[in-house]
Amino acid sequence: MYNFETFPNPQTELPYEIVHTHGEFTSLCPKTGHPDFATIIVSYVPAALCVELKSLKEYFHSFREKGVFYEALTNEIADTLFEALQPKELQIEGQFKARGGFNTVVRAERYNARG
Amino acid sequence: MYNFETFPNPQTELPYEIVHTHGEFTSLCPKTGHPDFATIIVSYVPAALCVELKSLKEYFHSFREKGVFYEALTNEIADTLFEALQPKELQIEGQFKARGGFNTVVRAERYNARG
Amino acid sequence: MYNFETFPNPQTELPYEIVHTHGEFTSLCPKTGHPDFATIIVSYVPAALCVELKSLKEYFHSFREKGVFYEALTNEIADTLFEALQPKELQIEGQFKARGGFNTVVRAERYNARG
Amino acid sequence: MYNFETFPNPQTELPYEIVHTHGEFTSLCPKTGHPDFATIIVSYVPAALCVELKSLKEYFHSFREKGVFYEALTNEIADTLFEALQPKELQIEGQFKARGGFNTVVRAERYNARG
Amino acid sequence: MYNFETFPNPQTELPYEIVHTHGEFTSLCPKTGHPDFATIIVSYVPAALCVELKSLKEYFHSFREKGVFYEALTNEIADTLFEALQPKELQIEGQFKARGGFNTVVRAERYNARG
Amino acid sequence: MYNFETFPNPQTELPYEIVHTHGEFTSLCPKTGHPDFATIIVSYVPAALCVELKSLKEYFHSFREKGVFYEALTNEIADTLFEALQPKELQIEGQFKARGGFNTVVRAERYNARG
Amino acid sequence: MYNFETFPNPQTELPYEIVHTHGEFTSLCPKTGHPDFATIIVSYVPAALCVELKSLKEYFHSFREKGVFYEALTNEIADTLFEALQPKELQIEGQFKARGGFNTVVRAERYNARG
Amino acid sequence: MYNFETFPNPQTELPYEIVHTHGEFTSLCPKTGHPDFATIIVSYVPAALCVELKSLKEYFHSFREKGVFYEALTNEIADTLFEALQPKELQIEGQFKARGGFNTVVRAERYNARG
Amino acid sequence: MYNFETFPNPQTELPYEIVHTHGEFTSLCPKTGHPDFATIIVSYVPAALCVELKSLKEYFHSFREKGVFYEALTNEIADTLFEALQPKELQIEGQFKARGGFNTVVRAERYNARG
Amino acid sequence: MYNFETFPNPQTELPYEIVHTHGEFTSLCPKTGHPDFATIIVSYVPAALCVELKSLKEYFHSFREKGVFYEALTNEIADTLFEALQPKELQIEGQFKARGGFNTVVRAERYNARG
Repeated sequence: MYNFETFPNPQTELPYEIVHTHGEFTSLCPKTGHPDFATIIVSYVPAALCVELKSLKEYFHSFREKGVFYEALTNEIADTLFEALQPKELQIEGQFKARGGFNTVVRAERYNARG
Repeated sequence: MYNFETFPNPQTELPYEIVHTHGEFTSLCPKTGHPDFATIIVSYVPAALCVELKSLKEYFHSFREKGVFYEALTNEIADTLFEALQPKELQIEGQFKARGGFNTVVRAERYNARG
Repeated sequence: MYNFETFPNPQTELPYEIVHTHGEFTSLCPKTGHPDFATIIVSYVPAALCVELKSLKEYFHSFREKGVFYEALTNEIADTLFEALQPKELQIEGQFKARGGFNTVVRAERYNARG
Repeated sequence: MYNFETFPNPQTELPYEIVHTHGEFTSLCPKTGHPDFATIIVSYVPAALCVELKSLKEYFHSFREKGVFYEALTNEIADTLFEALQPKELQIEGQFKARGGFNTVVRAERYNARG
Repeated sequence: MYNFETFPNPQTELPYEIVHTHGEFTSLCPKTGHPDFATIIVSYVPAALCVELKSLKEYFHSFREKGVFYEALTNEIADTLFEALQPKELQIEGQFKARGGFNTVVRAERYNARG
Repeated sequence: MYNFETFPNPQTELPYEIVHTHGEFTSLCPKTGHPDFATIIVSYVPAALCVELKSLKEYFHSFREKGVFYEALTNEIADTLFEALQPKELQIEGQFKARGGFNTVVRAERYNARG
Repeated sequence: MYNFETFPNPQTELPYEIVHTHGEFTSLCPKTGHPDFATIIVSYVPAALCVELKSLKEYFHSFREKGVFYEALTNEIADTLFEALQPKELQIEGQFKARGGFNTVVRAERYNARG
Repeated sequence: MYNFETFPNPQTELPYEIVHTHGEFTSLCPKTGHPDFATIIVSYVPAALCVELKSLKEYFHSFREKGVFYEALTNEIADTLFEALQPKELQIEGQFKARGGFNTVVRAERYNARG
Repeated sequence: MYNFETFPNPQTELPYEIVHTHGEFTSLCPKTGHPDFATIIVSYVPAALCVELKSLKEYFHSFREKGVFYEALTNEIADTLFEALQPKELQIEGQFKARGGFNTVVRAERYNARG
Repeated sequence: MYNFETFPNPQTELPYEIVHTHGEFTSLCPKTGHPDFATIIVSYVPAALCVELKSLKEYFHSFREKGVFYEALTNEIADTLFEALQPKELQIEGQFKARGGFNTVVRAERYNARG
């Protein structure tokens, strides 16, 4: 669990969508130790809480020295934000820079049954 | 509530869509006081009234010295236009310029039960 | 009503779509008298008749000295073509060049109950 | 009817889609005799037969000296390929180069009831 | 059957999508022996297993001296990966470089009934 | 000669460049009477005078009902602005929309010997 | 030699540039008889004469059934236009559509010693 | 004169170029009071001093409520930065958003005789 | 030395430029044995001889199983073509697909003293 | 000084250009400790030595935890590579991702007097 700075959703009666696109994500490959680079897109329909951008940025920076695979990484971000914000819906998309001639995208979604 | 200049919808029998895209929106960050910049997209299905472009522009300019967060801003524009025009449907999309490596989009919709 | 040149639909048994995009539309603003410029997109599923391109072009040129608002203009083109061609479906999209920092799009559809 | 060279569909148990885009189509305008130019997109879900590309190319070249309108042309290609290949589904899209300030697209579909 | 290196799916409870785009695929035309070039896009919803990128790359390289048609090739990749990974869903899209003025795309899907 | 509204160049000691790009120019073909459409680019190094944008726009609108060929038009604009502004250098570029499959660009320059 | 329709250059005192870009050129390969497709760009500084667009178009259409290599074609167009217009400068650029994985551009220039 | 925060050029022996592009510039039109929007590009070859980005940003923000024409504005920025940094070379390019169908660019350069 | 098929330059009196761009080049990395992919651009001013495209293609295919570094490869192509064609000028540009986060371009030129 | 892995230039008689573009550079801001991201472009004309890509990549990775300003960084890379390779010419261009609404580019060149 990660301790995000949040603020109260200013419009809790009607659902609406927030999309944050961060083009400066970097982590390490757990096999080779080489840096990986990605654009991470966070889309969510807030319930009671919205996440502060600065706090989201610091969370992403916490991956800078961490070895983690693309698939695990995308799901970990989804789980961490879903737990912290308890949004109605959440989608995380990781767009990873080319490795060995492959560009990879991983897309994970979470839904709140109460949403 | 904002006093928009409006004109009568020239085609009230059949629904149709109007989309106004404004690439020159600026407001202030309520935390830092720094300017924020956005493209605001207003899409609506008019009922009795259409909004005059010049009046919409002046409304957007009224945010120039106002401190307001992205999420609150998008919902405030949606509420104000929805109240003034009473359209069948309305969507406001705010596309905010990069801050700290993040591009943010906020999308809010309003529907008129009588629409 | 406008007297378009038409030709018989060569395939009346099976529905298909025709899209004409015209990037050279100009009319006048009824308030200021200044020229407006637009791209007009005509999409339709023909019934018995198709419209000749040259005739459609001349119809569009008839707006060159006419003062008319975006919303009225798009609906007028839709009504005129719908009456003349009696198509199964028709969509008119007007994409208007920037005025005061705004790009505007108006989209109107007509359906033939017998279609 | 046109005698296409075909080959047996290598995967007849599961439906899949084939899309051939040909940017070098030319025919003649039946009114003026002037050349027309188009990109033709053939999309189909094969049944027993697939069309050889070289044969498809020769078929398209047979239009080089032929006078035919956009709407008739697109439907003729659809009918000819549908009869020859008996596919589960077929779509022909003709994207015609600008004439008199108009770009035209014609889209025709055929479905095989047994598909 | 091909012996891919795989790793356990880190998130088996919730479905999510993985897309690998490889722009460096080459095989031979079985008729002429000339090289063909393609971008291959592998999209899947993993069940128990994910495929290692390096292993996927080596599999693709095994086509370098192989003569195979576009349609057979795309279906062969779909069958081989579907058998090895047993994913919930799988789509293979082959985008082939221009031959004789034609660009070809072949798209094949596989679904796991237990998915 | 055309009576442009001008204002004094705010920096007469050092040369600098001003470029105005106008995408809404329309005139008539002197042969067919059909409308022509162009983007006109005015680039100049001012001497004592700069041209007001609104005045330049009205000058361009004076061509709306005028029949004039591309080559004559571009040179006429160059001569008229050169005479009115007496700039150190001036370039007019007319980029004309497609006619009969041709896009045309005409580029004319004027230099002031005293510049 | 080709008999182009021309008109007197409206500005013979000062040199200026005219560029005509034609995206609808087609000829035949002299070896295979297959159609070739190209964009031809004519740039010239006129002396006494300018070429009519319609006449230039008809000249280009005269290649429709002619077998000629890229290099010879580009030089032939340069020679023919240079002889007919006697311009101060002339450049012909042929941009040929992909054949066997190759895109080819040929660029030829002619200068008039008296220019 | 403006009091920029600067730092010592880390490489004073060899000339090199620094380019800062700021897409969030806004000022007011001195005639209408309406907001203007621009991208400002600062390019310079430093001598003893480099400008801090944050300080440059604050300088640009000082124009937010200031009425100034495009031509005067670009030259004022050039003069202010040239005086403060005493660079070997400096270029300011202002790219102004569309007004009345015109996009305007103003480009001013300053050179240091001792550079 | 490679035995290219050539044909006589149709215009030997006046210099002109020929550019062939081939997007389907592949060779092997001499260290890892992995395939490399490149776009190769051949630009030359012919003297007595032009190269046949089919022959140039076959020459490029001869690298398919050859291990060679980017820098050596580009120079080898330059030397081989320069020897075979004896052109007035020749430039070879190799644009290599990303490896380890790097895109590489190598550019080599040859001039004929007699040219 | 940095100990790059190099290999002998395969063509030392004739000058040619090598360009390596690396889109995955990251360092730290020395003031805030926040990550910076850049694309670094290395262009050089080799003398006796060429740099191995893997070694260049490792050198760039050595900046991952280093605090350094844009201007100093670009010049440091230029000096280090110039000393190691002793090339005839070298240019380093750093393209830095947006900070506070600014995109920055720094370009430094080195020439070898003996080159």
